[in-house]
Amino acid sequence: MPFSMHTHTCGELRRGDIGTEVTLTGWVWRRRDHGSLIFVDLRDRAGFTQLQFDPDVCEEEAFRAAETMRTEWPILVRGVVCPRPDDQINESMVTGEIEVHVKSMEILNTSKTPAFQIEDHVEVSEDIRLRYRYLDIRRPKMMDNLKLRSDFTFALRQALHDRLFMEVETPALFKSTPEGARDFIVPSRLQPGRFYALPQSPQLLKQLLMVGGVERYYQVAKCFRDEDLRADRQPEFTQVDVEMSFVDQDDVMGALEDVLHEALGKMGVDMPTPLRRMQYWDAMDTYGSDKPDTRYGMELHDVTSIFSKSQFKLFAGAAADPNMYIKAINAKGAGTWARSKIDKLGDVAKTFGAKGLAYVAFREDGSVTSPIVKFFSDEEMEGLRAEMGVEPGDLVLFAVESRLKCDEILGGMRSHMADVLDVKREGHDFLWVVNFPLLHWDEETQRYEAEHQPFTLPTETDPKKIMEHPLEVGSYTYDFVMDGFEAGGGGMRIHNAEMQMAILKMLGFSEESAKEQFGFVMEALEFGAPPMGGFALGLDRVCMLLAGADSIREVMAFPKTTSGSDLMSDAPSVVSPAQLKEVALSTLQ
Amino acid sequence: MPFSMHTHTCGELRRGDIGTEVTLTGWVWRRRDHGSLIFVDLRDRAGFTQLQFDPDVCEEEAFRAAETMRTEWPILVRGVVCPRPDDQINESMVTGEIEVHVKSMEILNTSKTPAFQIEDHVEVSEDIRLRYRYLDIRRPKMMDNLKLRSDFTFALRQALHDRLFMEVETPALFKSTPEGARDFIVPSRLQPGRFYALPQSPQLLKQLLMVGGVERYYQVAKCFRDEDLRADRQPEFTQVDVEMSFVDQDDVMGALEDVLHEALGKMGVDMPTPLRRMQYWDAMDTYGSDKPDTRYGMELHDVTSIFSKSQFKLFAGAAADPNMYIKAINAKGAGTWARSKIDKLGDVAKTFGAKGLAYVAFREDGSVTSPIVKFFSDEEMEGLRAEMGVEPGDLVLFAVESRLKCDEILGGMRSHMADVLDVKREGHDFLWVVNFPLLHWDEETQRYEAEHQPFTLPTETDPKKIMEHPLEVGSYTYDFVMDGFEAGGGGMRIHNAEMQMAILKMLGFSEESAKEQFGFVMEALEFGAPPMGGFALGLDRVCMLLAGADSIREVMAFPKTTSGSDLMSDAPSVVSPAQLKEVALSTLQ
Repeated sequence: MPFSMHTHTCGELRRGDIGTEVTLTGWVWRRRDHGSLIFVDLRDRAGFTQLQFDPDVCEEEAFRAAETMRTEWPILVRGVVCPRPDDQINESMVTGEIEVHVKSMEILNTSKTPAFQIEDHVEVSEDIRLRYRYLDIRRPKMMDNLKLRSDFTFALRQALHDRLFMEVETPALFKSTPEGARDFIVPSRLQPGRFYALPQSPQLLKQLLMVGGVERYYQVAKCFRDEDLRADRQPEFTQVDVEMSFVDQDDVMGALEDVLHEALGKMGVDMPTPLRRMQYWDAMDTYGSDKPDTRYGMELHDVTSIFSKSQFKLFAGAAADPNMYIKAINAKGAGTWARSKIDKLGDVAKTFGAKGLAYVAFREDGSVTSPIVKFFSDEEMEGLRAEMGVEPGDLVLFAVESRLKCDEILGGMRSHMADVLDVKREGHDFLWVVNFPLLHWDEETQRYEAEHQPFTLPTETDPKKIMEHPLEVGSYTYDFVMDGFEAGGGGMRIHNAEMQMAILKMLGFSEESAKEQFGFVMEALEFGAPPMGGFALGLDRVCMLLAGADSIREVMAFPKTTSGSDLMSDAPSVVSPAQLKEVALSTLQ
Repeated sequence: MPFSMHTHTCGELRRGDIGTEVTLTGWVWRRRDHGSLIFVDLRDRAGFTQLQFDPDVCEEEAFRAAETMRTEWPILVRGVVCPRPDDQINESMVTGEIEVHVKSMEILNTSKTPAFQIEDHVEVSEDIRLRYRYLDIRRPKMMDNLKLRSDFTFALRQALHDRLFMEVETPALFKSTPEGARDFIVPSRLQPGRFYALPQSPQLLKQLLMVGGVERYYQVAKCFRDEDLRADRQPEFTQVDVEMSFVDQDDVMGALEDVLHEALGKMGVDMPTPLRRMQYWDAMDTYGSDKPDTRYGMELHDVTSIFSKSQFKLFAGAAADPNMYIKAINAKGAGTWARSKIDKLGDVAKTFGAKGLAYVAFREDGSVTSPIVKFFSDEEMEGLRAEMGVEPGDLVLFAVESRLKCDEILGGMRSHMADVLDVKREGHDFLWVVNFPLLHWDEETQRYEAEHQPFTLPTETDPKKIMEHPLEVGSYTYDFVMDGFEAGGGGMRIHNAEMQMAILKMLGFSEESAKEQFGFVMEALEFGAPPMGGFALGLDRVCMLLAGADSIREVMAFPKTTSGSDLMSDAPSVVSPAQLKEVALSTLQ
């Protein structure tokens, strides 16, 4: 690289470079002192190169320094690229055919002994890794992850820029609109008693940009949600935010497919286009999930009609009730499990909302284990075997509930069984799930909630009809599903102020509170808002999947713990009383 | 554009497109109803196209809609590109040779009458513009500014990416280290009583990335400073943040010149490289500024020696004092001003720290007006004329102070006089100002303060010598100056923990407070930190200069007022008591 102390990186020297005088910089990775010869693997961001210190070749001072230096010291060496002796060629290393015979060296700094070895596979708690994140990211795998993220982000930007999307920066200090998740708030010093909020997404602002005529907008946007950080969540995350105007839904989805195809292609991932589109209810009914992993089967089957005359009261009762369903999945291979192990699946099913879990295990010897099979007629059994494609060793699991609950329980079980049975999921899986319901009824809050968000365009254009049958109304929505994760989502937006107000009222807002929180958006819609729609890609998640990592923390430079701490700097921290007083606040005891 | 309702933009149709069937979308900009014919200028992000509605060509419904529709309604039209009659060709318009004869139309939305006309030159207060920013950015000039910013930002990213810089996102929720400006603080809900701070810059984190081996980092980073928003400041602003390791200062400056040359070149601006490098003290002594605009002269001259034997006691006294200087500038053209007007310059000089302002006005008729010239000998007068290159009509202004104060006063006056006299400053002016002092003495706080920042590498390597003569120590620093603005700045960093601690102590930190605030950085330096340096470009300011605008607000989509308000959404706003309670805070009355 030009503009550097070195002439080459530690990852690029090959047989063809033999004889070249080079200068390398990096960290001492491994050091082997053979007395008369000292070997050092030098590591930089690009890779490793073996150095040889030979007192007959090397300046005396450099040799003496090589005797005493330790791992993780940064050094600069000058030397000549030489072939390794035949018996020392390392074919698992891209620079394994050469070594650099050092002539002179500069020790650029010393290092204390790190808390853990800088190796890809190192047994150390995540807390220690985060405490010394600057050492952790020296590990080649972490460095590759950060590089992947940088490259993929740039590829997305380039694809968007080439398609005339304008990058517009929207403010991080904005208005608190505590709809959806909880806001992080920021006290204002110039206006004591008032607060900014950090944006949960640039949703409202990008809609205003469309009203403003930007037509094609994108931003790699930092978003903030003050949620409890169970599972794999972070208080701040990044989305590739897109919005378009003078478009219909196919335009937006087409543009996104085009952009994603190109950017993923640059990462060596072929995403065939056009992407498959799955209706929301098909996804739910077939996979029990609105983000199905379709790399494996284990689909949900509706077996209600098989049991319409069953002796088994639970099934017969459900079959007779038009709101109830009997659905099943076939977990192939689990039919050989011990009864006690199968029984424990009931507890798993409860976590997905089931009251219990009926099952039939088809043993390899042709026998059947099941608490309920005694009630089944031969005809029912035959019908079940046929519908579920039963073979010896299969385990059929049932859910008996309303449609959505059946789907959710068996969707959860499908995913659980796939993990437990280690079902193969090779390559990547991409699809759209489209046409989400506009609303759902929330039992807890006893009101309608937006399935996507409150600005989503319904497929029904008459507000009155929406009010009459709210749960039957669809919406112009599309989620981008990758490998069973919701990797992105979007929709067309309401561009009519009256419709927007009607929807907000459906969601339980009074006219006054709707105006207070979203009045500026509805006002903007009155000044010639064009048809618009957009999308947000979860960058952290997609990078995680591309890196083959199992947490978004593996593709973030400085993630926080589940209590929201940065273990390196000890943030959040106590601030001085003067700082608090300046923003007119006091802490509650 | 593909993936759009339209086939062409309103900026692209030319004579060569005549006969083409097109679909256009945009806003009704100007509408002229000639009864039998209706003409509409349709506006989108790309430009304007004239539409002709002729009842003989156009569907009846469309013609009737064209009769009633108003400005700023978004519409879609289908029609044929036709030549304009010869007498209607508009050469000032890129689409001025053609018009589209409309066949059919869809009214996509209506619009209320905007608070101001969507024109480039419109007399309206900035408050109204910000209140309706979504209308303001429909104005072609604002749209061009946003596009310029998007294009320039992308060009910078591309140049950095091509040179193997990795984009790494650093957290926005970090530790409060109230050094420099005031932090915005963010209360933590999960850790009541503790606070994050929004970063004033990613300085510490990018240094940790260098310790972590990233080698070349960049980020287009949102930065936050809770300062009083006088002048042209915003609470959040954007810097293009860069850091490199295994480099010396020339490597960093060379890389930046290369990147800036390429990115500016794509914006049609030729920045010749290598850039001129001006020593800090040369800039101060010659231009009275560490960010000189060198597109015009009016340099500062040291005239102390001319007055060593002066009858004028103030001058003679200064000449005799080794710490005092007599310096002057020649404001050509202002020598014709009335005495009263010249006298008023004294008030201006006071704003730059002067106690008063001595002057000599050389009248066109050969006479001289000055309160002090009566004390000057012929020899002194001759010396002054020669040194200052005096011609009739010149005004020579003096400062009599210590070196730095002279520089600051006359630097301020130089800039003021250039503005008042409307001195020509054509094209762009780029240079480096280098080698800033490490420290300066702050009279107000009565302690040393870092001239750049506390992590800057001194040119002196022995901490003891720094302590002995602190004000004489230079630093590896470089500011990028564009058109008289500090457009960016950078430096090499301390990569040794002991030196860092010594400097923090010089800056008045106790060992304990230094460790509390910066301990994690100093700890990181102990684990093999490499030599490193970096830079931050003020993106808002550079875009402002490229756009020829006079405020950074003109190149930001949603800027805030001087009281930190967003006039559209009314942020900051009051939050609910519940929201405050969740973060364990109460407001002071």
